[in-house]
Amino acid sequence: MPEIAIVLVEPMYEGNVGFCARVMKNFGFSRLVLVNPCPLGSEARARASHARDVLENAVHATLAEVRRESSLVVATTGEVSKSVCTPTRMPYYEPAELRGMVKDVEGTVSILFGRENWGLSNTEIRESDIICTIPASQAYPILNLSHAVGIVCYELAGLPRGTYRLASPVEMASLLSHIDAFLDEIEHPDFKRENTMTLIRRILGRTQLTSREVSTIHGLLRRTEWHIRHHDQPEGESDHDPC
Amino acid sequence: MPEIAIVLVEPMYEGNVGFCARVMKNFGFSRLVLVNPCPLGSEARARASHARDVLENAVHATLAEVRRESSLVVATTGEVSKSVCTPTRMPYYEPAELRGMVKDVEGTVSILFGRENWGLSNTEIRESDIICTIPASQAYPILNLSHAVGIVCYELAGLPRGTYRLASPVEMASLLSHIDAFLDEIEHPDFKRENTMTLIRRILGRTQLTSREVSTIHGLLRRTEWHIRHHDQPEGESDHDPC
Repeated sequence: MPEIAIVLVEPMYEGNVGFCARVMKNFGFSRLVLVNPCPLGSEARARASHARDVLENAVHATLAEVRRESSLVVATTGEVSKSVCTPTRMPYYEPAELRGMVKDVEGTVSILFGRENWGLSNTEIRESDIICTIPASQAYPILNLSHAVGIVCYELAGLPRGTYRLASPVEMASLLSHIDAFLDEIEHPDFKRENTMTLIRRILGRTQLTSREVSTIHGLLRRTEWHIRHHDQPEGESDHDPC
Repeated sequence: MPEIAIVLVEPMYEGNVGFCARVMKNFGFSRLVLVNPCPLGSEARARASHARDVLENAVHATLAEVRRESSLVVATTGEVSKSVCTPTRMPYYEPAELRGMVKDVEGTVSILFGRENWGLSNTEIRESDIICTIPASQAYPILNLSHAVGIVCYELAGLPRGTYRLASPVEMASLLSHIDAFLDEIEHPDFKRENTMTLIRRILGRTQLTSREVSTIHGLLRRTEWHIRHHDQPEGESDHDPC
């Protein structure tokens, strides 16, 4: 991925600048460029919270300097063209598409966000390479500046969810076989067995159990089996849920 | 899709509540539920901006009431379990997965967002059906409340980008044929032709031109052809870009 610069063009409210720094850092971005911003003081720092470093390292630049130092300039806008005959704001892409579009760019990709009241000017948009619009409700399509920055950063980061260990095919087969044996234990009729096992396989298939969950279900089945076999004896120590 | 309720559990800052209302409306959601919120005054209304209706129609409820009226309860959390042996926060899903998981649910899906300082309690999480975590940078994974609500709403809305008319296959074939004829005009050598046309097809293939763009390129080619053929005559009126 190229370096991503978030460029705020003449932001009017310092709180928004602070929030932008914070949400950038939330998604792993740190290069904040400010074009003729409002004065930044304690409110910006408060909103930045643990992203003061992003705020303090913000670069002040003109749009001309931004363009000169960028391999690609993306203009974000809430207003998209209604007509194919006005190329200024057309064609436009959504944030989910941006990542793929910029991933092979070398150098810096600068993403411009306009003023809180009227966005980017037609000239500023015309001199950008790509137009990006966040799909929003017609009833109220204008996002707060930091929310727009957040969604673009979220999509550009494309961070992995992280993984948790789902039960392996071997573990799942062992669970199904335990369930099958359990159905014997409760004298589930043979003629229904195939359909019931298919139904259970469907449930487990879409549930995507973790190893831990499989292990707990084995434990519950074993405990139940013990009670079926020894319904008049005290519970054995050896049958506790192993997890 | 089911009705989506955004449930803020004991939010501490009225500005955040207002911002949440705004970003909900941005993505077409209107059902805001507040569990024991901070007092809401002018700052909440200011942050809600044109989403004051969402704020004013917010329902006050207890978590027990929320659970009673929900078909499914999703707990959002920034802290995910490190171990498969602690099922409270495991397994977890990311916002991009939620839409598919809830789309067939009838009734209301309530999405809980916790307090700004310590989120949802283990008990609150334990009594939820699904855990959702926004993948974020390890360096600073704690999002502002309204940014988290915004990203979840953005993903749940899954709003279409809107469409613009890309050039049809017929229009693209006509452009390629015009370019081929143009190469004749500039005496492009035959032995290079096939490779050059393939290269141009590749460029156009990944560029995804709109109808308007194709039309403008035709116009530019025609204008150029006219100048090649009549390089000593004044420009003809009939050759102007038609768009």
